Amino acid sequence: MLSPSSKKHKSLEPRLDLFAADSPLQESRRQWVPPRPLVLRGPFQIKESPSGASGKGPSSDVHNAFKHLKGSAAVTLVATAATGASANKQTNGPQNRSGTNSVSNGHAKDPESLRIGIVLSGGQAPGGHNVIGGLLDYLLERRLGSQLIGFKNGPGGILTKSCMDITDTIMAEFRNQGGFHLIGSGRDKIESKEQLTVAASVVKELDLDGLVVCGGDDSNTNAAVLAEDFASRGLKTCVIGVPKTIDGDLKNSQVATSFGFDTACKVYSEQIGNLMMDALSAKKYYHFVRLMGRAASHITLECALQTHPQAAIICEEVHQQDRTLADIVDEIADIVAGRAEEGKNYGIVLIPEGLIEHVPQIGALIAELNELLADVTTDVQSHDAVLTRLSPANLAVFEFLPACTRQQLLLDRDPHGNVQVSRIETEQLLLQLVELELDKRRKEDKFCGKFAGLTHYFGYEGRCSFPTNFDAAYCSTLGYVAGALVAEGKTGLMATASSLDKPCADWTVGGYPLIDMMCIERRRGKDKPVIKKALVELEGPVFKAFQQMRSKWAQGDCFRSPGPIQFSGPHADAANFTLALELGTVQPIQIV
Amino acid sequence: MLSPSSKKHKSLEPRLDLFAADSPLQESRRQWVPPRPLVLRGPFQIKESPSGASGKGPSSDVHNAFKHLKGSAAVTLVATAATGASANKQTNGPQNRSGTNSVSNGHAKDPESLRIGIVLSGGQAPGGHNVIGGLLDYLLERRLGSQLIGFKNGPGGILTKSCMDITDTIMAEFRNQGGFHLIGSGRDKIESKEQLTVAASVVKELDLDGLVVCGGDDSNTNAAVLAEDFASRGLKTCVIGVPKTIDGDLKNSQVATSFGFDTACKVYSEQIGNLMMDALSAKKYYHFVRLMGRAASHITLECALQTHPQAAIICEEVHQQDRTLADIVDEIADIVAGRAEEGKNYGIVLIPEGLIEHVPQIGALIAELNELLADVTTDVQSHDAVLTRLSPANLAVFEFLPACTRQQLLLDRDPHGNVQVSRIETEQLLLQLVELELDKRRKEDKFCGKFAGLTHYFGYEGRCSFPTNFDAAYCSTLGYVAGALVAEGKTGLMATASSLDKPCADWTVGGYPLIDMMCIERRRGKDKPVIKKALVELEGPVFKAFQQMRSKWAQGDCFRSPGPIQFSGPHADAANFTLALELGTVQPIQIV
Repeated sequence: MLSPSSKKHKSLEPRLDLFAADSPLQESRRQWVPPRPLVLRGPFQIKESPSGASGKGPSSDVHNAFKHLKGSAAVTLVATAATGASANKQTNGPQNRSGTNSVSNGHAKDPESLRIGIVLSGGQAPGGHNVIGGLLDYLLERRLGSQLIGFKNGPGGILTKSCMDITDTIMAEFRNQGGFHLIGSGRDKIESKEQLTVAASVVKELDLDGLVVCGGDDSNTNAAVLAEDFASRGLKTCVIGVPKTIDGDLKNSQVATSFGFDTACKVYSEQIGNLMMDALSAKKYYHFVRLMGRAASHITLECALQTHPQAAIICEEVHQQDRTLADIVDEIADIVAGRAEEGKNYGIVLIPEGLIEHVPQIGALIAELNELLADVTTDVQSHDAVLTRLSPANLAVFEFLPACTRQQLLLDRDPHGNVQVSRIETEQLLLQLVELELDKRRKEDKFCGKFAGLTHYFGYEGRCSFPTNFDAAYCSTLGYVAGALVAEGKTGLMATASSLDKPCADWTVGGYPLIDMMCIERRRGKDKPVIKKALVELEGPVFKAFQQMRSKWAQGDCFRSPGPIQFSGPHADAANFTLALELGTVQPIQIV
Repeated sequence: MLSPSSKKHKSLEPRLDLFAADSPLQESRRQWVPPRPLVLRGPFQIKESPSGASGKGPSSDVHNAFKHLKGSAAVTLVATAATGASANKQTNGPQNRSGTNSVSNGHAKDPESLRIGIVLSGGQAPGGHNVIGGLLDYLLERRLGSQLIGFKNGPGGILTKSCMDITDTIMAEFRNQGGFHLIGSGRDKIESKEQLTVAASVVKELDLDGLVVCGGDDSNTNAAVLAEDFASRGLKTCVIGVPKTIDGDLKNSQVATSFGFDTACKVYSEQIGNLMMDALSAKKYYHFVRLMGRAASHITLECALQTHPQAAIICEEVHQQDRTLADIVDEIADIVAGRAEEGKNYGIVLIPEGLIEHVPQIGALIAELNELLADVTTDVQSHDAVLTRLSPANLAVFEFLPACTRQQLLLDRDPHGNVQVSRIETEQLLLQLVELELDKRRKEDKFCGKFAGLTHYFGYEGRCSFPTNFDAAYCSTLGYVAGALVAEGKTGLMATASSLDKPCADWTVGGYPLIDMMCIERRRGKDKPVIKKALVELEGPVFKAFQQMRSKWAQGDCFRSPGPIQFSGPHADAANFTLALELGTVQPIQIV
């Protein structure tokens, strides 16, 4: 680690070298150089994609909100011959990375040099440091004398002009490392007029040629807003987005995946695989595992493909089929009962964290509860009074819930008085409901197995792991490309890498207009152009594959244990199944 | 996986090969051959250790309980020249492992052949399959025509004669895999006269030359009981123990470590390291992590050395210093407050699962509560009645606990009516108490930081991971040695490997009398000879090292991220810090 105090360990007695400040893997991953697409290894130029290549483009409503960005085209980086530089040709090939090089050499500014800011926005995702590293590599290799400025602790750091120079020496400590701790992250948005004015004055003051924003759908929507605002003010600062989120819900026809998804799914799948082997060995527990991933169930789906659980609930399916909590409980209880008949009283159930909000029935209950609790004429202290006013349908749902969840719904509210649905431990709730259902069946002589459940929540552990080789390569590529896009004066684009089903060397790279990913959504009573969250497509190849297998997995013991992420050896370079299926390959994707 | 249904996957459309029944790591680990001590690679003979080498030996009380085992000596396997076999010389060198070989070849029994049973007892620990594999290798290489019989689902499988032949073909699927699912495990003991008689008749019926028991302190105590019983009946069946437990509390002067500890600690340390990077990046959470490990804090201590948390509570220290829950809460609150002054409102606290039972104060409260609740003259329905009868000291402790824990103590009782202290989520309890303490300090203007906590429990995930290279090599060595000890007619020994600070090739191996590890303990009102649980030694090198570093770790950001277990690459062969410190080495231990 980087704190000065930790460096002092080395002066302690030799025995303590055993647990030196950094782990061997931290050390060895720093030395690892991710593969890079061939096009980024030599001279290249930026070409606008042929008309229509970027899809049908945004609606006129989106266009109206982004007058200065409309008409911006998708671009691709194309290799050129090593000689004959032209205005839009980036001719410098890569130079060797040197630990002593500084991006800013302290001399007079080279006319070719750039000043680029970078900000990490929202929750951590493995690979963030590699985006920064890739961007720095671009500057070091092609724009000597440039300066890379990291804004601290998220977009709030832009508003407070809290930033730091990122040199190659500093970067060296963070290459291929997990976490966002080089510059931190934060959840602030830059949206109000006042905030936009402050941001504009800061990027102007810092003389930034570009600002690279790593974030999810909301943060990239915000990046488009910044790009539009800077352009409208005539500022030179280009804004380039990079797709970051472990949730995997920022993707579209041009963006194959968001960074961090691959690693996070593999961290969770390791743990789930371990639990499965434990279930199969102890033969006495059902493990109910809640997985991070917000509204979308991509993580749960990928983990299911990786590990073959007895059940995996997919929010999008629950929503589409308007399934009730009782339906879900019945489905799980049926699986448990079916296995019990074969003497198998163990298994794994995967539950996406967004589930509770996606059961339409629960949504209706929450909405009515919130209304009743907000109604000043209701005595909110008297829960009986609230309950007598609930509609019969919602009351029935309420009474279906276990006592502790009912209490939680009534008592545990946010500062605005709203029910805190996200605080409900869905895995506990489902486990209790399944227990009740099985007890009922037992009394009716319909179930004679044993049932003991354990609950788990896997979330934070997956956000800051060392990035997989795939995420490390994907991120440094995106960072490098972001630099090239800024150099070319492109703004309002998201850095992209495509053909990910090929080895990294053959990836194609470029930029895709953020506004082309946008649609109008109603938020807080206002129409707002936003980047659409990509949910699991029930007609897509990933869900279809799961659908084809799940009944086998439910009754069989088809457990699959992916084990810990490997960084060397034969399988270190393989990417996740979701990506492979979506790209239509029949073989696991390998980056080298 | 092995179930017949899962094999059918292969007939599905090619795309589904993407998530074939087994993961690439499951496949590749099967092919890996663990290193083996040189002595086991050629002819060897078994020598009794010089008198006194096995320590001072058991007390006369222990001797009295094991009349047929007393006087058994520790033994060492010593390499011999390749020629000149003698009665106690095991001359066959290793033969190549062949997938088609069966241990039992179906022909008339070879006079040299052996029939050995193996049983896994208690909780899962990574490496169990390798013990079985090592034992099988011994038979395949040196005793052709032998038969290896696995008892299913623990010692209960001996009583019910539930067993299976383990051939090389079957074993091939399980080599270097996590879990115990080849034969399962269970928590039954064979203790009563009736049970011992049944066990004796089963091993006689199966014509077993040996029985290998993999288990923790209790299971190995049980192994000694079986060895004594079989010997007293004049049965030929030798009983050999193998030290298994992730908790790391089965070790002594001759047994350096129990198998599974190395892997489990690394699985937890990976997750803790990830959480640390997350804490350091998000800068807004304290993660309170409870770790498996029962009464002893070895796992927590090793994970602390691996990851450098802000605080790690060690049960043995709490107990020795007679610390109260308030003391512990104060210690954590002091660290939080100290860090807040430097603007650091994040960190990690490690909590051993055995903590709550080790706070003497809580122990006293629980004891009195149990007595009061068992007292038929108390109206147990009326908790007020119980509380009015609590001693003032215990009432004060009770009232210090958060409301939900108080409720849990009174309501949530086991079938015997006892308070279920193990059901208390200690990490939740501590988090709530720290919150209350910080609120109090805030009101007194002694704390002005922010405090937000998240809780985690890491346990089951660590029990069935793929074993590390160290555990894989250690286990197959122990299994191989167990076979050699049976072949030599040794009984009542634990298989051992020593000089673990050297590369695996140079390990010395042998057997150590189980009764020499025993002492008399009072259990359920009776004196009983048992293998002593090894707790953390507060004067030992591991705790001392932690003690030396912990205040630096508390205030600094010395986070260390070990990352996922690697099976190849430069650091794949290193063992844990606890072992290195206990063996007094100054370099990390590497098995090759």
